Amino acid sequence: MHPAPPLPSNTAYVPFVSVANMMRLVHDIGLDVMLHELAHYIEEDFRRWPEFDKSARVASHSEVGVIELMPTSDGDTYGFKYVNGHPKNTQDGLQTVTAFGLLANVATGYPELLTEMTVLTAIRTAATSALVAKYLAPAGADTMALIGNGAQSEFQAIAMNVLCGITNVRLYDTDPRATTKLARNLEDQGLTINCCHSAHDALEGAQIITTCTADKQFSTILTDNMVGSGVHINAIGGDCPGKTELHRDILLRSDVFVEYPPQTRVEGELQQMPSDFPVTEIWQVMSGTRPGRVSDRQITLFDGVGFAIEDFSALRYIRDRIDGKPYVERLDMLADPDDPRDLYGMLQRAAPIASCGS
Amino acid sequence: MHPAPPLPSNTAYVPFVSVANMMRLVHDIGLDVMLHELAHYIEEDFRRWPEFDKSARVASHSEVGVIELMPTSDGDTYGFKYVNGHPKNTQDGLQTVTAFGLLANVATGYPELLTEMTVLTAIRTAATSALVAKYLAPAGADTMALIGNGAQSEFQAIAMNVLCGITNVRLYDTDPRATTKLARNLEDQGLTINCCHSAHDALEGAQIITTCTADKQFSTILTDNMVGSGVHINAIGGDCPGKTELHRDILLRSDVFVEYPPQTRVEGELQQMPSDFPVTEIWQVMSGTRPGRVSDRQITLFDGVGFAIEDFSALRYIRDRIDGKPYVERLDMLADPDDPRDLYGMLQRAAPIASCGS
Repeated sequence: MHPAPPLPSNTAYVPFVSVANMMRLVHDIGLDVMLHELAHYIEEDFRRWPEFDKSARVASHSEVGVIELMPTSDGDTYGFKYVNGHPKNTQDGLQTVTAFGLLANVATGYPELLTEMTVLTAIRTAATSALVAKYLAPAGADTMALIGNGAQSEFQAIAMNVLCGITNVRLYDTDPRATTKLARNLEDQGLTINCCHSAHDALEGAQIITTCTADKQFSTILTDNMVGSGVHINAIGGDCPGKTELHRDILLRSDVFVEYPPQTRVEGELQQMPSDFPVTEIWQVMSGTRPGRVSDRQITLFDGVGFAIEDFSALRYIRDRIDGKPYVERLDMLADPDDPRDLYGMLQRAAPIASCGS
Repeated sequence: MHPAPPLPSNTAYVPFVSVANMMRLVHDIGLDVMLHELAHYIEEDFRRWPEFDKSARVASHSEVGVIELMPTSDGDTYGFKYVNGHPKNTQDGLQTVTAFGLLANVATGYPELLTEMTVLTAIRTAATSALVAKYLAPAGADTMALIGNGAQSEFQAIAMNVLCGITNVRLYDTDPRATTKLARNLEDQGLTINCCHSAHDALEGAQIITTCTADKQFSTILTDNMVGSGVHINAIGGDCPGKTELHRDILLRSDVFVEYPPQTRVEGELQQMPSDFPVTEIWQVMSGTRPGRVSDRQITLFDGVGFAIEDFSALRYIRDRIDGKPYVERLDMLADPDDPRDLYGMLQRAAPIASCGS
């Protein structure tokens, strides 16, 4: 007679944060606090940039979109994110971007956290943008133009409000319904909101210009004559080969700041420039080894494409913040035989118990 | 007053196969049948090799092990596996290899299946070895030497039995307890089992030689004088930089067959050879464009390191085989707002309902 199959042991389980639990965690902490705290984690990791194992993300492109894996490691902890980008998904009621991520222990290779990252990516992207703007935006900036009013736009507006003191937002999207949705969602945030009829109109008086449109093609959201001196451009929409938002002449007049140059030169606004076009790595500004903004007249441009270390910071933050909270399920994702060399024995012991007489 | 937060919709869920459910599926189908069917899926995919988007796996190495991501796509479906390799884990009661994998729809980027792959990897590796041996082993082979008696060894023995007609296995491991475990697990398989006191002893009369040891270092499990003519070597233990099992002189006398040369030249026995050392891609043998075994005296060597397409085949097989069976859970891993551009609105609607009077 067989013994009953043993239950999985503790090491067989991976802590899992579902979408519903991630949303509970956000409300428990509060989005404003979370943006602050997550920006702090990102800043910590950017300041120790050389400790990380870095590579451009591994992208699988198709005609309609891209699926990417974004791994990194600091030597103790390994993290990666799965993320897709499919601009036409919205036509079918699906999202442009969905994501999930994982942390693992480098010493054992065992996963330590699996979590949804669709919501979390929107928050980490906004936290990164606002953190960078803290270093680069002109002093006293209070007005932001927000061009592209899709799924990320609320998070961008709120992060710029709580981290950088932006109080006025000027919204524009080619689809007015997107702008209406954004304005409605921002109602209670204490922001002055202007819905604009053109990108040109949205830029009026803005010291920060955020572009977050989603088309997977070269487009020109901003032309050179639209951008005056002394602004900070937060260009986060262009993030794959063949997708840009700014006219190249703007880059010629700007000081360009990037996350990881080998990735940005392929995916970002930098695609339009020669491969030796000078850039500053933003981690160097945060660690004090390179200057950020040096004059009131300067145009600073953050060519943000999203880098694996930001996801690593977000995963690390969630791991720390779910500790002791009821927002974690346990996922039976790792086989864990009593004798690690006896995987087959574990499988055998899991066989259904034969009925009497058979 | 807020409405109750809506439940996640169907598209928000990812089908998930846990370890317990994978083991139930294996027993439901039967391991023998599963090895046959999975080998057929792998053969199908190898025969359409040029259709796949291929790249060497993305490895993050540390002193004690490696964590790898193995993505591929056939243009319709994308798959990847997360897998670690930590030989010293067994000292701490942990496994050398754990894995999980995912399939996604290329058209939308949405995940379609998440599954444990620790058990599944052992089965797909054995199915691949046996499938390759069907093409390369000498006619009438009935005896296999099995050197390295760890977690994969039972699966290798059973696959060679059910797919290739091996009836005698000769076992050797530097740790006799591993051999004892393997012999006990194979008791009911109808195999003649010999436990041997040296690798040299294990090779006696064997037409197939399988090496599946786990040390992450150059070692010489087989020396040149141990290997006679007319055998097939199934070398699957060496699978990362700095890890090999065979003396290079054996490779000089063999015809070497590989999965994906850019990966095998870095990870496999081929590390020891010049970068232009001639090899045959095994998919070409399966598709009939290159010869496999051409003489009774020839030494064929499968330098198997494991390639992403084998995992893709395994994931595809599981997706097809769980259909209609009760072995799937639904994981709330994808945010799915009613309006895909309104991720923030979904988050807001998930806020806890305020109590009366507050």
